[in-house]
Amino acid sequence: MIRVSIIGSGNVALHLIQAFSNNEVVELVEVCARKNENLVGIIESSMIITDINLLKKVDLYIIAVSDLAIAEVSSQLKYENSLVVHTSGSVNIDDLNDKNRKGVFYPLQTFTKNKVVDFKTVPICIEAQNEKDFEFLSQVAHSISNKIFKIDSKQRKALHVSAVFVCNFVNYMFQIGNEICLENQIPFEILWPLIKETAQKIEFIEPKAAQTGPAKRNDLKTIASHLEFLSDENQKNIYSILTNSILENGKEL
Amino acid sequence: MIRVSIIGSGNVALHLIQAFSNNEVVELVEVCARKNENLVGIIESSMIITDINLLKKVDLYIIAVSDLAIAEVSSQLKYENSLVVHTSGSVNIDDLNDKNRKGVFYPLQTFTKNKVVDFKTVPICIEAQNEKDFEFLSQVAHSISNKIFKIDSKQRKALHVSAVFVCNFVNYMFQIGNEICLENQIPFEILWPLIKETAQKIEFIEPKAAQTGPAKRNDLKTIASHLEFLSDENQKNIYSILTNSILENGKEL
Repeated sequence: MIRVSIIGSGNVALHLIQAFSNNEVVELVEVCARKNENLVGIIESSMIITDINLLKKVDLYIIAVSDLAIAEVSSQLKYENSLVVHTSGSVNIDDLNDKNRKGVFYPLQTFTKNKVVDFKTVPICIEAQNEKDFEFLSQVAHSISNKIFKIDSKQRKALHVSAVFVCNFVNYMFQIGNEICLENQIPFEILWPLIKETAQKIEFIEPKAAQTGPAKRNDLKTIASHLEFLSDENQKNIYSILTNSILENGKEL
Repeated sequence: MIRVSIIGSGNVALHLIQAFSNNEVVELVEVCARKNENLVGIIESSMIITDINLLKKVDLYIIAVSDLAIAEVSSQLKYENSLVVHTSGSVNIDDLNDKNRKGVFYPLQTFTKNKVVDFKTVPICIEAQNEKDFEFLSQVAHSISNKIFKIDSKQRKALHVSAVFVCNFVNYMFQIGNEICLENQIPFEILWPLIKETAQKIEFIEPKAAQTGPAKRNDLKTIASHLEFLSDENQKNIYSILTNSILENGKEL
């Protein structure tokens, strides 16, 4: 068995802990976290430690803490020449402390507390400093997911920026849509099938070809009436900017 | 059987024609369209006409043409006091010609050519001038969908604006994400599970509570590094505006 310990108790850590439970390849040895309360009921209390100096020697340390704490936590590890990875989309592999072998183990998914995710479908983006460590990390990744990608730090940054657009900004569009529905006594559920279809469609058609709506068909009358309808300055501003961008984009074709 | 004829051959018309095929409640009598080529292979050629004056008398005329043509087409119908509906999200019921009984039959979904949609799950928003016509339209709608909503013209406009945000603008975010992936030799498929989860999540958690990402956690360092990474002015501008909006929005909490 490959022996793995995790440092952290945030959303990524919790989902990894669950993914590594009852795993035939990986044995989760310890979880080190200052905030213990998140871990109660998830793993045995004997596996939880709070002092990073007490971590046992294992084959892989996964640092799943906030981006700003990664460098510091990696420097606190007492072992040397061990394999140490972080799980962040936006932190460079070089930010890990030099005393250990470095890697990245980035599960590309949005993790929400109390919302179960099927880890088998979560793409895991791996980076390592040498081929042997890369193969080792692939083995660990394959034990929890079917989708493994070799992604270097520059690509990972691009991927993370892209994820901000397709996940964070998309969710913000849902929030605005929800606000407009609430203001007009419309159940937001009425938009769920549209949202589902919009997300599914891009697996069959390129996003550019899938674009529909008033801006795409240059329907300036509808655009003007939507802008007149919107009273919230924030919503109006976003509507204008995205509409103009789609209009401009269409011209390039 | 309820006898229905459709005017139009665009995406909405084509999907309605397919939904009404082999229907136990509704008999599709004719389809009137200037552009016949879209209809070849979809319905029998004997059912297709090009001259609106030749339309037979039926129980319901569904005008599924572009928004700008609805008023004109409704005025061309030779019958009076018949039930006539349009299928648009953004056109007022009053834009239909006064000589007939007016209604709206708005299927709230994004329809793409050659992409099959399960109509049973498509919400149909109905509006009519009297209770009897409303009940009749409900019966027609129930024959193809399980989700019928009573939505007046003002609500429909709100719903349409909302749909622009949660569908058209969302797809545009997918397009930008795809562009960034292409520029960095990353397969866009790597983002599909994230996109799917983002869309599914809002059926369990309100969008505002589901918001994640650098802006939500006030991670100014990551935001700055993303803005530095983006070289395309359009992408950079949209990133800034949406990020600032999420940052501002968080403050209100």
